[in-house]
Amino acid sequence: MLAKRLSHLGTETAFAVSEAAAAWSAQGHKVYPFHLGDINLPTPSNIVQAQQRAIENQKTGYAPAAGIPQLREALAADIGARRGIHCKAENVVVQPGGKPVVTKFIQAIMNPGDEVLYPNPGYPIYESQIEYFDGVARPYRFVESPTGFQIDVGYLESLITPKTRALIYNNQQNPLGTESGRAEMEHLAELAIRNNLIVLSDEAYFEMRYSGISESIASIPGMQERTVILYTFSKKYAMTGWRLGAAIAPREIAQAIARLNTNDESCTAHFVQWAGVEALQGDHTESRAILSELRRRRDAAVEMLQSIEGFSLHKPETTFYLFPNVTRAMQSMGYTDVSDFADAALKQACVSFCTRKHFGRPQPGEREQYIRLAYSGISVEDIRAGLGQLKAWIERR
Amino acid sequence: MLAKRLSHLGTETAFAVSEAAAAWSAQGHKVYPFHLGDINLPTPSNIVQAQQRAIENQKTGYAPAAGIPQLREALAADIGARRGIHCKAENVVVQPGGKPVVTKFIQAIMNPGDEVLYPNPGYPIYESQIEYFDGVARPYRFVESPTGFQIDVGYLESLITPKTRALIYNNQQNPLGTESGRAEMEHLAELAIRNNLIVLSDEAYFEMRYSGISESIASIPGMQERTVILYTFSKKYAMTGWRLGAAIAPREIAQAIARLNTNDESCTAHFVQWAGVEALQGDHTESRAILSELRRRRDAAVEMLQSIEGFSLHKPETTFYLFPNVTRAMQSMGYTDVSDFADAALKQACVSFCTRKHFGRPQPGEREQYIRLAYSGISVEDIRAGLGQLKAWIERR
Repeated sequence: MLAKRLSHLGTETAFAVSEAAAAWSAQGHKVYPFHLGDINLPTPSNIVQAQQRAIENQKTGYAPAAGIPQLREALAADIGARRGIHCKAENVVVQPGGKPVVTKFIQAIMNPGDEVLYPNPGYPIYESQIEYFDGVARPYRFVESPTGFQIDVGYLESLITPKTRALIYNNQQNPLGTESGRAEMEHLAELAIRNNLIVLSDEAYFEMRYSGISESIASIPGMQERTVILYTFSKKYAMTGWRLGAAIAPREIAQAIARLNTNDESCTAHFVQWAGVEALQGDHTESRAILSELRRRRDAAVEMLQSIEGFSLHKPETTFYLFPNVTRAMQSMGYTDVSDFADAALKQACVSFCTRKHFGRPQPGEREQYIRLAYSGISVEDIRAGLGQLKAWIERR
Repeated sequence: MLAKRLSHLGTETAFAVSEAAAAWSAQGHKVYPFHLGDINLPTPSNIVQAQQRAIENQKTGYAPAAGIPQLREALAADIGARRGIHCKAENVVVQPGGKPVVTKFIQAIMNPGDEVLYPNPGYPIYESQIEYFDGVARPYRFVESPTGFQIDVGYLESLITPKTRALIYNNQQNPLGTESGRAEMEHLAELAIRNNLIVLSDEAYFEMRYSGISESIASIPGMQERTVILYTFSKKYAMTGWRLGAAIAPREIAQAIARLNTNDESCTAHFVQWAGVEALQGDHTESRAILSELRRRRDAAVEMLQSIEGFSLHKPETTFYLFPNVTRAMQSMGYTDVSDFADAALKQACVSFCTRKHFGRPQPGEREQYIRLAYSGISVEDIRAGLGQLKAWIERR
């Protein structure tokens, strides 16, 4: 009954982890949820109030397909200033979340048969959308070092062919919690320019950082005109369930994305867009508090995980993900499949997390084992308790 | 720079009418807006309050891709009861509006080269999405009678070939304001069953009626298992800008649509879904008042339009659209192109409306001229004033 194209549509298999966790919880166990990148903190009250005012002012009818001018202008100003680039409202196309930018980018610039480079491990929707729209998905890889993960740029370069059309780049990376140094970013930009690649810069976590400052590949000379930035309100403002984001793109691509909006969903919820204006232009006290709380959680989670025998991980300054190498722990416990290890951790330590396998098909030659924990949806107290149980379970062998 | 597929992506050209109206208004003219199917009435207050409560209860994180169980169950019960069919929550996939059901239906069931029958005049996104996903768009047509418009079922049947995969059916029709009698609906169902067609039943206006009762083609024996219903909260509850709707589909299609949700937008805004639960299960006093107000507007608009020399139209019992035949008026004024007539009406009578051309390419042999007016976004007083100016402009010649 279904169309053939659906056979090459992927999904986020991490939702299966949610279901397993919910099922175990339903049996009366207190499960510590490290599997989902959601945030269990309230949206700042000034944003909520702005939405209520917008509804009172009857901002309940349709909005323009590309977004209300006020939000497009506010985004152009904010995103431009934080990246040191010049954006205009015409470059901004509001979306119901950051995620829609992935499919709309692919649809706007990739022809069937075009090759697209994307990170693996990485957000699984990249590969899904490349293959769904008949492109050729070319995963690039990372190398682990004591300070984190770096893109294997030499390998990435070796993947480039005359058919390579685009590079998907997710600095402040999910799931690795890593980011490029300046040299790595410049190397990628140079490859993009030399090979005439369009870049999707997924900057969902650009402002989620605990020290230092983020840079955008769009700020490198020659890049803005070939880069689409994925922006989202989800993380910084604890607005995951509000579904508000934007594509920032060269004008021609922005217009194509706006036309896709008209076809796909008409517009993003009208009053939610006014809430977005307040988020950008209003008081940031509460959003700073969100980041402080996440820092406390990171510190607690990293400290606990680093103390577990057979785990190793660096301390990321960005995102709210941790990607410990658990190879030695698994070996000492006799696990060879990281999925089995995760299942056992849920059942025996009541700790729920994703594994490397939820972020793309393992690449040839991969030998190390990794799990991914998100600390955005769990309190410091529960982080300590849950990871304490995980540690006890692992170390009692 | 853009992918080739965009060259066969359509759009809603009606937005150009909005722009022309806004431009004329910006020059200091009071424009009477009959062009856009939006509603200038507030959303019922109990729905607004339910959303606020949901935010207070921190329903601000992600929701399941297919929607929160409470809304899926409420929709299954409400939609099933009003149509006399049995729906389960598993058949319901929540969407950010009714419109996303069109693209997801096409993606889920149509292979490249498949033919899809759709109404012309009709909602322009049907044709756009069929052609965008490499199907063959086969428009069917209507015949006008003194009591409205009927589907030319004989012609529709003549379009069916072994490659015909689906039928898009928009009873309570935009732009015609027409609907099928029981015999016409049964004839369509019989054709769908005999030719093994999947049906998209766009029921956006199912509950927007001023007398009588709506029936769904899904209620005819043998149809529910081959029908996807497009449902939206937009009209009945004056929630156009909230972006909340649903697909009601056989289980296999529902699961495919949920997977598309995961890829395209993750989920529909979480607290908006709770507002939807209240809309369905809470007090309906205010939504009834919306319908009463629309009835007053219909009565005023139909009365004025019927009084204009050279206009003819029936009085629809459903939707908030009117589709007068203006052939004689145009002839008497010397217009041969309905677009010129509409432009002149904006400039000379300050009345803004769409034309037949905004609802699909005119079909071979079409000779009559039509315009489309929406009365959902304009008060009774302004309907009288605006259409009075239109009448004076037309009749003074």
